[in-house]
Amino acid sequence: MKLAMIGLGKMGYNLAQNLLEHGHEVVAYDANAEQIDKIVAEGAIAARTLEEIVKQLEIPRIFMLQVPHGEITESVITTLKPLLDEGDIIIDCGNSNYKESLRIGKDLLEKGIHFLDCGTSGGVEAARNGICLMIGGNSEAYKILEPVLIDISVENGCMYTGELGSGHFLKMIHNGIEYGMMQAIAEGFEILEKSEFDYDLEAVAKVWNNGSIIRSLLMELVESAFSKDPKLDEIKGIMHSSGSGKWTVETALDLQVPAPIITLALLMRYRSLENNTFTGKIVAALRNEFGGHEVVKK
Amino acid sequence: MKLAMIGLGKMGYNLAQNLLEHGHEVVAYDANAEQIDKIVAEGAIAARTLEEIVKQLEIPRIFMLQVPHGEITESVITTLKPLLDEGDIIIDCGNSNYKESLRIGKDLLEKGIHFLDCGTSGGVEAARNGICLMIGGNSEAYKILEPVLIDISVENGCMYTGELGSGHFLKMIHNGIEYGMMQAIAEGFEILEKSEFDYDLEAVAKVWNNGSIIRSLLMELVESAFSKDPKLDEIKGIMHSSGSGKWTVETALDLQVPAPIITLALLMRYRSLENNTFTGKIVAALRNEFGGHEVVKK
Repeated sequence: MKLAMIGLGKMGYNLAQNLLEHGHEVVAYDANAEQIDKIVAEGAIAARTLEEIVKQLEIPRIFMLQVPHGEITESVITTLKPLLDEGDIIIDCGNSNYKESLRIGKDLLEKGIHFLDCGTSGGVEAARNGICLMIGGNSEAYKILEPVLIDISVENGCMYTGELGSGHFLKMIHNGIEYGMMQAIAEGFEILEKSEFDYDLEAVAKVWNNGSIIRSLLMELVESAFSKDPKLDEIKGIMHSSGSGKWTVETALDLQVPAPIITLALLMRYRSLENNTFTGKIVAALRNEFGGHEVVKK
Repeated sequence: MKLAMIGLGKMGYNLAQNLLEHGHEVVAYDANAEQIDKIVAEGAIAARTLEEIVKQLEIPRIFMLQVPHGEITESVITTLKPLLDEGDIIIDCGNSNYKESLRIGKDLLEKGIHFLDCGTSGGVEAARNGICLMIGGNSEAYKILEPVLIDISVENGCMYTGELGSGHFLKMIHNGIEYGMMQAIAEGFEILEKSEFDYDLEAVAKVWNNGSIIRSLLMELVESAFSKDPKLDEIKGIMHSSGSGKWTVETALDLQVPAPIITLALLMRYRSLENNTFTGKIVAALRNEFGGHEVVKK
């Protein structure tokens, strides 16, 4: 199948390679021309502008997006929209907020353009060798794309999730679960690290990956991290987040689902961004006020 | 190797079968005579009392325990101790508190008896086909038992963890992580279940097990549960716990490790045991007192 790949970052580039390997014709575009040159050397067709992509495809045109969610996704779609025809399909494989996907999808549908919201999991290597996909939106549009999506995904790793928004919603929840699992694993290792015993943490992760109940890809990634840096001395414990954890918590609040683990995992990420919290100052000040407990001065 | 298996419950019975399959001579004991008869039919040697076991083994005798932690473990060891000789080895494969293991191990050592504390993970099926073991205690005693332990564990699933107590400590942390991971997964599925979308939850677990970042044994077990009961209509959301989560939290508190996810996962289990909390009554009463908000009457 001939389709466009918009966005050739770590994920998009590997997805483009994956598509090429499966014999698809890829019209490749990125804001960074060097990335286009690289993938063209691997067999893709260059498109230097979004307009150029549109011209290179036949109706129904298929556009696969793998660009940062939010403004950039929005701006790409806003630029594409006037150039497209009824029946064209945009599939957004980025980490977009499902509410945005619902809005964009409904807006595009007014012009007869189909929008599929596709949650993508597995990381950079999986993008190259077999990814996990969860796709929401019009089922006929999905059916057109299904052979391509099955090609680039791992076996049983491609799911049509139902109506518009359900793909990105599912990926959001996947990420929320990931926050909680990661924090649970991390807390366990911190207790080990501070304990009276002297564990080889890489060996611990390894034994847990062989036969234990908590064996998991995340534990394998922990094992890999410890194999490179046995006490993680080279990195700081600053945990950034890119949106989906926060959206999961917002959704849990809207639905009144008590989800304290996912919520606190997010809050612990925020806490990790600060060395010295205002909360800490207030509690220290209050202990001093009522009990004369010493405060640590700047 | 000839060794005793004390405790033929779900785990112990399967471990005994596993030992027999690997050509070991198993002297089997359980409080329930029927379990002894069953395993004898599979090739084990019966011991109807703990005294009988001791007589059937040659020095250094090896005793593998797989009995409930706490009182029963304590009582078995108290009964055995006067019957044993220097160099004999007891390996406790149960979920004992590492502090108990430290105390018992030191006490037995006064008589020259070695005690190995062995954390065992993987569940009943793994006990039969290849388990995950983490063993603390005297390294020479471990070396004697190592071939047997490697036989019954999965490849790379047997770890000598160091000094006395470190095996059960590690298993305790494993279980604490398990609490957090389980609660994170569960919260995610509750949000899905209450969402505006109509997901096939078994299909969701399946796609997440194929290529996603959160693929794990626990997610496979969720998939299996949904395959039997698509909305888990047949069970109640009551979450029991058997000690190791609480010990992990106590240890985190002692070490001043901020471990909110593991802690809250434990507290959510306690919350699940009650339909109607006293906390709830107090908050409802207070809202009524200051704001006239209606309370739900019995």
